[in-house]
Amino acid sequence: MLDDKNPKRTSLEELGEFGLIKHLTKDFTTKQKSTLKGIGDDAAVLDITDKKIVVSTDLLIEGVHFDLSYVPLKHLGYKAVMVNLSDIYAMNAIATQITVSIAVSNRFPLEALEELYSGIALAAKTYNVDLIGGDTTSSTKGMLISITAIGQAKEEDLVYRNGAKPNDLLVVTGDLGAAYMGLQVLEREKEVFKVNPNSNPDLSMYTYVVERQLKPEARKDVVPLLDALGVKPTSMIDISDGLSSEILHLCEESNVGCNLFEDKIPLDPTVISSCEEFKINSTTVALGGGEDYELLFTIDQKEFPKIKGNPNLTVIGHMTDKNEGVHLISRNNTKIPITAQGWNGLSKEEQ
Amino acid sequence: MLDDKNPKRTSLEELGEFGLIKHLTKDFTTKQKSTLKGIGDDAAVLDITDKKIVVSTDLLIEGVHFDLSYVPLKHLGYKAVMVNLSDIYAMNAIATQITVSIAVSNRFPLEALEELYSGIALAAKTYNVDLIGGDTTSSTKGMLISITAIGQAKEEDLVYRNGAKPNDLLVVTGDLGAAYMGLQVLEREKEVFKVNPNSNPDLSMYTYVVERQLKPEARKDVVPLLDALGVKPTSMIDISDGLSSEILHLCEESNVGCNLFEDKIPLDPTVISSCEEFKINSTTVALGGGEDYELLFTIDQKEFPKIKGNPNLTVIGHMTDKNEGVHLISRNNTKIPITAQGWNGLSKEEQ
Repeated sequence: MLDDKNPKRTSLEELGEFGLIKHLTKDFTTKQKSTLKGIGDDAAVLDITDKKIVVSTDLLIEGVHFDLSYVPLKHLGYKAVMVNLSDIYAMNAIATQITVSIAVSNRFPLEALEELYSGIALAAKTYNVDLIGGDTTSSTKGMLISITAIGQAKEEDLVYRNGAKPNDLLVVTGDLGAAYMGLQVLEREKEVFKVNPNSNPDLSMYTYVVERQLKPEARKDVVPLLDALGVKPTSMIDISDGLSSEILHLCEESNVGCNLFEDKIPLDPTVISSCEEFKINSTTVALGGGEDYELLFTIDQKEFPKIKGNPNLTVIGHMTDKNEGVHLISRNNTKIPITAQGWNGLSKEEQ
Repeated sequence: MLDDKNPKRTSLEELGEFGLIKHLTKDFTTKQKSTLKGIGDDAAVLDITDKKIVVSTDLLIEGVHFDLSYVPLKHLGYKAVMVNLSDIYAMNAIATQITVSIAVSNRFPLEALEELYSGIALAAKTYNVDLIGGDTTSSTKGMLISITAIGQAKEEDLVYRNGAKPNDLLVVTGDLGAAYMGLQVLEREKEVFKVNPNSNPDLSMYTYVVERQLKPEARKDVVPLLDALGVKPTSMIDISDGLSSEILHLCEESNVGCNLFEDKIPLDPTVISSCEEFKINSTTVALGGGEDYELLFTIDQKEFPKIKGNPNLTVIGHMTDKNEGVHLISRNNTKIPITAQGWNGLSKEEQ
């Protein structure tokens, strides 16, 4: 499970800053017609004259957002791109370019950065985005990755967080909680490894949850899916911090309340079984776990027939008047207020 | 000289991530008509349909790019924006938006971030750019700032690094080496302070060089100046790493050589006097010091009458055939090759 720490080690000083950037980005080519100039000048140049431009940025820091004792660097590069693209898709836009800046301490050899960039390259290729710029520098401690993603959409297609209306349906893509349970499995194995470095754990029964943690996929497919179904959400957000946090954002920005139905929350069987094993409530995990990178959106009730039965989309609640508040309707029909505290208490990720 | 470390200290945990972003950005308003949506959604939305879009990004890290024992946080915020805007101006473009991501350890109270953001706000106001997004997170050690700047220009106005031709004149704005000498003064005073914390140094004679280090100004004025003069450079770059490094970039990208004349390099009298005091060669400082954030560009010889006598612009050399190489012509008329090593040996900034 633990990544091979590279038999070959080339120190970063041997290349110098400009040599390093050139070396890491030499195999990246630009494919978007909107990319006029990528890496290699003071700035990149884009041509997006017929659409609106969408810009999002995220910072990932070793020891805060990722733990290199169990995250392979290639997966980390891939995930760092996903985290950013997810924000672009949450605007109902298409991602087209990224910039990637990294800082690393001297403990990382060149081969480690090549691994990281191979994951970034795979993500860029799979999601059809161009790497157009970035910065590479040394850090006094650890690794950090800062990515800015750029996308485009017609103005009439853009979906903000503030358009939800009372009685709109609340819809989520995919299933929730798996990334958090994957983290629990990985952290447990890290503890086992500390005690017995020769342990060779069988994680095959956890494949789904571990993959959701280590190699999440942003929902690029949902933007054209909604277009094909003829549905434009009234509001949308991506699930990075956890369902409850994102629902609160939509409610606050749209000035509405919400009823979320516990029995509707989509959970993978592996999430349910691992929650039982770890003695954690699966609803708590779905609400507060985060890092699912699914999309959460609202639609007008009259659109329901268009999405009904689609295996990618699950209706999990409906919006209400603001003064009704934001509640989870539990399996035994109890109304439980959803608060940011519920998330703050659980999340280990960000503060 | 050393910054007051704030009598009031509010811990960042009290606010939480969302509270922190809201608090720090609450006084930022957007003014550019191209900013449709700034902070507050998954992504910002821009409308730049009539121009090309220019994107640049830079990372500043405590202990590598700045030393908080003598850099006031407000100045740091201001400088971090300048570093990025300078890249946009080096494309002959106008900067219009920035995203700012920061990571800080728990050692920083809220009041420290407010100081940092007051500098960012001053830079945004002075340079007429909108803050449209960012990320705020904790770090395990120190502070880092990641900024992406976005600008715009008509396609025909854009200037790349690769358009210089043999016989073009090499022109630089302002003067060189002051930021590096400011750093020498500040580092010397830091050592004095360590030995005698009650020392009260008189830095008034170093005002210019210290200000160039702590609060540089990007050359926003040069883009409209060149336009007014009717001059379009054939190539351009900003001086962040030092004159020799930037000349080598222009020569490599444009496939030309260069003769740089030592006696033409513009130096402020304070740079000359502090170089004498520190027993450093002023040409070495201008060539390798960096952080001047001036613009270096080439123009066709026939444009010379248009710039002649302009106090902002100094002709310092001319481009040659590639096979003639890149040389400094010294005051005693010796030809000295300019190499990247000259920069690597001197720079303390980046690797």
